[in-house]
Amino acid sequence: MATRFSDDSFMLHTDLYQINMMETYWRDGFHNRKAVFELFFRKLPFGNGYAVFAGLERIVEVIKQFRFTEDDIEYLRTQCGYQEDFLDYLSNLRFTGSIRSMREGEIVFAGEPLVRVDAPLGEAQLIETVLLNIVNFQTLIATKASRIKHVLGDEVAMEFGSRRAQELDAALWGARAAYIAGFEATSNVRAGKLFGIPVAGTHAHSMVQAYRNEYESFYKYASTHKDCVFLVDTYDTLKSGVPNAIRVAREFGDKINFSGIRLDSGDLAYLSKEARRLLDEAGFTETKIVASSDLDEYTIMNLKAQGAKIDTWGIGTKLITAFDQPALGAVYKLVSIEGDSGQMEDTIKISSNPEKVTTPGLKKVYRIINSSNGKSEGDYIALEEENPQNEERLKMFHPVHTYISKFVTNFEAKDLQKDVFVGGQCVYELPDIEEIRAYSEESLNLLWDEYQRSLNPEEYPVDLSQKCWDNKMRNIEEVRKTVDALKG
Amino acid sequence: MATRFSDDSFMLHTDLYQINMMETYWRDGFHNRKAVFELFFRKLPFGNGYAVFAGLERIVEVIKQFRFTEDDIEYLRTQCGYQEDFLDYLSNLRFTGSIRSMREGEIVFAGEPLVRVDAPLGEAQLIETVLLNIVNFQTLIATKASRIKHVLGDEVAMEFGSRRAQELDAALWGARAAYIAGFEATSNVRAGKLFGIPVAGTHAHSMVQAYRNEYESFYKYASTHKDCVFLVDTYDTLKSGVPNAIRVAREFGDKINFSGIRLDSGDLAYLSKEARRLLDEAGFTETKIVASSDLDEYTIMNLKAQGAKIDTWGIGTKLITAFDQPALGAVYKLVSIEGDSGQMEDTIKISSNPEKVTTPGLKKVYRIINSSNGKSEGDYIALEEENPQNEERLKMFHPVHTYISKFVTNFEAKDLQKDVFVGGQCVYELPDIEEIRAYSEESLNLLWDEYQRSLNPEEYPVDLSQKCWDNKMRNIEEVRKTVDALKG
Repeated sequence: MATRFSDDSFMLHTDLYQINMMETYWRDGFHNRKAVFELFFRKLPFGNGYAVFAGLERIVEVIKQFRFTEDDIEYLRTQCGYQEDFLDYLSNLRFTGSIRSMREGEIVFAGEPLVRVDAPLGEAQLIETVLLNIVNFQTLIATKASRIKHVLGDEVAMEFGSRRAQELDAALWGARAAYIAGFEATSNVRAGKLFGIPVAGTHAHSMVQAYRNEYESFYKYASTHKDCVFLVDTYDTLKSGVPNAIRVAREFGDKINFSGIRLDSGDLAYLSKEARRLLDEAGFTETKIVASSDLDEYTIMNLKAQGAKIDTWGIGTKLITAFDQPALGAVYKLVSIEGDSGQMEDTIKISSNPEKVTTPGLKKVYRIINSSNGKSEGDYIALEEENPQNEERLKMFHPVHTYISKFVTNFEAKDLQKDVFVGGQCVYELPDIEEIRAYSEESLNLLWDEYQRSLNPEEYPVDLSQKCWDNKMRNIEEVRKTVDALKG
Repeated sequence: MATRFSDDSFMLHTDLYQINMMETYWRDGFHNRKAVFELFFRKLPFGNGYAVFAGLERIVEVIKQFRFTEDDIEYLRTQCGYQEDFLDYLSNLRFTGSIRSMREGEIVFAGEPLVRVDAPLGEAQLIETVLLNIVNFQTLIATKASRIKHVLGDEVAMEFGSRRAQELDAALWGARAAYIAGFEATSNVRAGKLFGIPVAGTHAHSMVQAYRNEYESFYKYASTHKDCVFLVDTYDTLKSGVPNAIRVAREFGDKINFSGIRLDSGDLAYLSKEARRLLDEAGFTETKIVASSDLDEYTIMNLKAQGAKIDTWGIGTKLITAFDQPALGAVYKLVSIEGDSGQMEDTIKISSNPEKVTTPGLKKVYRIINSSNGKSEGDYIALEEENPQNEERLKMFHPVHTYISKFVTNFEAKDLQKDVFVGGQCVYELPDIEEIRAYSEESLNLLWDEYQRSLNPEEYPVDLSQKCWDNKMRNIEEVRKTVDALKG
């Protein structure tokens, strides 16, 4: 590195203004006020009917390392000009707050808190940037993967995007997010090692080029690997690639498992049908056709509509970058702060855009599951003091179009968040990736199909309790009065 | 982590097929054949007329750590089933090859090799994925930043995207890429520390909310910071935010530097003009207006056309994710391989899409700079044995539409690549970030304005030498004969 601060830590992975605000709070004796922030997004990505929450494992990793290094402090001292007394405070800072979060793999919606941070104001502020950075990306990719998997059904989906990912972390954590949301494997070996995800892959065009002879390259691969998927489009798929694959498979017979051919360019609909015909005519009816080449849920649906004969799908660029909408736009907003009297006081952010007005107060999110059919009736955001499970008949109404309402009886109100940190200590045992993946599938199954479809899904209800709604209106009114007073 | 392989290394940051191919090569005694790969992209992103190369510092970092850890090997043994003899080869593998690369900040174009790897086949193959992962992202962001900076001219551009970046590495290296391409600062403090980039930022909405009173929050900030940029849109920009900022600035007088106000939502054209009027009327004619809110080159041009009074620009999501085209699509292709006789033999990848046909052979890239005006005439890709500087009259012709041609005299042929690794050793001293940034600006100045404009730029010539073109045609012809022979 070009600077003398070569040690790395996550503590400075924050926006400078967080530290400037911390300085104001600290000098003002305000930094230890109890604050509650909520992390949420305002709009579902890709026009999807739901999102798949991911990022918690990484958050836990980062928060556990919450501690400025000496180099961090030295940088802030010499390059940013902070004073010694404030630097002392930072040096000794440890995370003492609490974090509640959705479980990874949870099906989540716009406007509901995914992560809630209860912490001294300074600490809560400092971790905003890194929390958003993690959740925004991982949730986005898990959601995109879920959409793609939805159109594939039981067909195998493999994540092949590392080379096009937005730097190394995106490749790594993106592979994990895709697996959580139902993908079967990744090509990224590091993701396989670190997360226990199945890895997949055989050979590239370069191997065919290296031997300067397609037949010879397939032959060499078959000589050294039992399981063979031959990439057949280096020179000419139907005239050269598939015939060479068949020739090698015949020569090796039982010595190899000719499990597939892979198409990576050209007209996949046409080529897959012709390749299928050639394979079937040669007796290789069990050999699968793997396709890759800038695929996403739209091209897949299109290929299926054209009767393409593709069994296994390798998905790269469009998934790992969330190509059609590469940012989720989650935000982290203060909803309550300790007042001078020691009581918690609600806070609100007003905007001329009604969707951007925050919902104040200490809240919990419940999934209201109909006990008679096991399906979800919607999500219900209530003030912390409320317990919807105690209601005989729960009134659910749309938080904007309030006339849209229904009563639900015979339900289970499931608290969606788990305690992850309490008083600075991690109390959450990170689940195994297979558990997360299974939980996600189960969670998705609570939704009626109408919410799951990828095109024009129904809007899933995310409602506020009456008390929560009333509280929001009261807060809006108060701010309006203050602003009007200034104006007058 | 959920698996027992908790140690991390970059060595497995590769696609599984690379290791499978290495196994074939190794068992076949083919792994040490000299191979030459080129990394290039086929199409400029965003419809831009040029790209800004970035990623080399990260590549050097990764290649210097080229060595499988014991955990890497254990993972490959127990989870992927590789045999001991092959694992021994991997355990002892070190990078022994050579890498030539464009300098960071270099202005680059489609079809020209950005990075060239000369290495034993197995080694060259293994690093493909990570090289692409790095260059694809960093070059993409540097290019996007350059486009944005182009419409801003001398106005200050700050990178504010960390929270929306695609995981942590993207935030960090993206901030660096933006700085290389001309941005003035980043909000990411870790990027500031690691790369020596200026950092910027003041306060967020949350501070206004925390004090539950906008005036008080500005007052507290001014009490603790000399330099003040007040964020004025928490409640109501014109009725509350700007008046409160002015009130505090008047109260503090010379004790603070009221350097700006920041607008982060709403109609930026209207609000900036009205805010400017209020500030000017109050005598704060030197106070700047900072704007942020999903900005990119298009919204900026639009705001300027509307006469918005914005002095400083905070650019987040649209830059850090390259929102309108979040992947560059660079590839890594084998262009030459050592034959059985020990001679290097050229290789080609054919495609029905002419743009996807690779250019075989050992090559160098030259920028042909007209000595009379200091402007570039185009880039010239020649075989390694050629030296265009020796030509009196250099013929440059379009590699697809070959009738488009010109002769250049009185020129400097600048070899664009630098030796970075030679025989496994790093021989390149990484430049300081300021040097890289200055070099990039200088490099961009070689281009006529017609290539620089963000909308419908002229196509910059990237030509092949006659020998290079002839060699490509000869290779295409050879493959065609082989395929036809199979068919017959």
